[in-house]
Amino acid sequence: MNHLTLALDVMGGDFGPRITMPAIQKALESNPRLTFLLFGDQQQVDPILKVFPETLQSRIQFQHTDKTIDSEVPFSVAMRQSKNSSMRLAIEAVANGQAEGCVSGGNTGALLGLAKLLIAPLPNIDRPALTSLIPTMNGKSTVMLDLGANVEVNQKQLLQFAEMGNIFAQTILGLVYPRLALLNIGTEESKGTQVLRDVNKILHRRYDINYRGFIESDKLMNYLADVIVCDGFSGNMALKALEGAAKNIISLHKEKEGSPLCSLVKNFFMKAFLYRYYRKLQEINPDRHNGATLLGLSKVVVKSHGGASANAFFYAIEYAVQQIEHKIPERIQQKLVSLAH
Amino acid sequence: MNHLTLALDVMGGDFGPRITMPAIQKALESNPRLTFLLFGDQQQVDPILKVFPETLQSRIQFQHTDKTIDSEVPFSVAMRQSKNSSMRLAIEAVANGQAEGCVSGGNTGALLGLAKLLIAPLPNIDRPALTSLIPTMNGKSTVMLDLGANVEVNQKQLLQFAEMGNIFAQTILGLVYPRLALLNIGTEESKGTQVLRDVNKILHRRYDINYRGFIESDKLMNYLADVIVCDGFSGNMALKALEGAAKNIISLHKEKEGSPLCSLVKNFFMKAFLYRYYRKLQEINPDRHNGATLLGLSKVVVKSHGGASANAFFYAIEYAVQQIEHKIPERIQQKLVSLAH
Repeated sequence: MNHLTLALDVMGGDFGPRITMPAIQKALESNPRLTFLLFGDQQQVDPILKVFPETLQSRIQFQHTDKTIDSEVPFSVAMRQSKNSSMRLAIEAVANGQAEGCVSGGNTGALLGLAKLLIAPLPNIDRPALTSLIPTMNGKSTVMLDLGANVEVNQKQLLQFAEMGNIFAQTILGLVYPRLALLNIGTEESKGTQVLRDVNKILHRRYDINYRGFIESDKLMNYLADVIVCDGFSGNMALKALEGAAKNIISLHKEKEGSPLCSLVKNFFMKAFLYRYYRKLQEINPDRHNGATLLGLSKVVVKSHGGASANAFFYAIEYAVQQIEHKIPERIQQKLVSLAH
Repeated sequence: MNHLTLALDVMGGDFGPRITMPAIQKALESNPRLTFLLFGDQQQVDPILKVFPETLQSRIQFQHTDKTIDSEVPFSVAMRQSKNSSMRLAIEAVANGQAEGCVSGGNTGALLGLAKLLIAPLPNIDRPALTSLIPTMNGKSTVMLDLGANVEVNQKQLLQFAEMGNIFAQTILGLVYPRLALLNIGTEESKGTQVLRDVNKILHRRYDINYRGFIESDKLMNYLADVIVCDGFSGNMALKALEGAAKNIISLHKEKEGSPLCSLVKNFFMKAFLYRYYRKLQEINPDRHNGATLLGLSKVVVKSHGGASANAFFYAIEYAVQQIEHKIPERIQQKLVSLAH
């Protein structure tokens, strides 16, 4: 049985070891192949780690560091703080081959920056893209990329995103011929930027890609595509607007009105409904979605959301494991090499 | 008493004269200064017009045309269809000085295209911007531009949008020092495109503008700014995503679950709540928002949404009247001339 090693930034996220350690325990219990390299503050981790069953403890290597990157600081500050931080050490462990992937709930900008700095990109990939599975209204998933790693992209890079998204959907969603769409502000071929219009034409000629044309941002969750391709600016803009809607629903709900009894009954039903809707929307927030992966690197790097629960962080670990087991980076590399010949 | 003449495309929108004519009657009744130049199909308009009180009929000039532009056709087709159409005749009436502004609920692309083609832009304005008042969660309004007229903009054009939005908020919202923000995917000054970062720096140095920095798309309705400035691509992307959220709420609501009694009670409260929320969101859809104006032209051109009710179309007329009465184009011109010196 082959081992599979993940490097983990135990300190990342709003709650640090209190949520990352229980998630690690759950991951070890559910996947016997898994071993961990953990990076964090020994004083905080030890009390939790020493109550792990010994069989699980034996599958963990722990390295102490008291350095962390603040989650809310600007990118430049985060990068200056990064030396010997738990996040950077985790990424370095992946870069030097000690681990096959890493997961962190820390500062998004720093994670993207360090991953791009330290981990080799795949040949034929200009820029990695932040990729998530977004939930659809019928309970399925759509792959969406880029969600914020690249503010401006050219034709070649968008086509690379399409290629990577296509392989990701084939592998992770198990689809033979995933429906792919390009995010735009209209569905006619004359709409949008020149880059979008050019890429639209090129994709329409590609018979190996099941291209469905443009999709608008009001249809993101409507399961009209299995892969939605966009630049990081548009993707981030559209998903944050959706999340804003969710927050607004909650705030409207909090406005008091009607009789106390009426409010009581209303609140009961509203809460059940809103919770369900809010969760759906919350999951697709690129900052908080649990398991956004930086696709296009030679290794798997997963960003968990900062406010994740132990259970949510466990799913971010699973997301990384799934990509490693399905050899996503290798599949992308093979496909791009075959296209180049 | 000075007259104020509006040119109206009576045929535009999903319901044509059935909704535009009652809106015209209401506008004539509520504003004694107003006169109309109407363009449309006499056979459809006459039965409605002839039951208007004679005093109102005397303030209407009607010109027959049986040509209309289909609301759903692509831009190029719409422009080919435009000759002698009710929409084009209305815009031409404004261009040649017969009317001071026009309103249409027809094809958005055609209206923008014809307005830009036929009506002179203001000096010092490179490109007009589609501008709406979007509702905020506290019941106030925020001016947002551009909502889709300009897919790509440069630094100079964004600064012109800021200038125009500022004057619009001062005049229409009656604010002395409106809070202005720039739409971006983060609030740090290092975020976004080079154009956004440059404009951010320039606006921060402008003491005559109450500039508050970047705003993210999840805060559009949070009343953090009185003016939100963006390129047409970002603005359209963000607002459509919000509208998608509203549609998704409705579709979730339609999913049946729970016991029949439970559903009945739930439905009662849900409907009241959703209706309120959906209306809020619906109003801000750039395609449907009633009263999006093309700011930066020498005359007032207002787009009503295609599915507008008579009452909603009446408000689009009022929106045009308000801008004419407040001399919005002249105010923008004066300000830009004073800045140029």
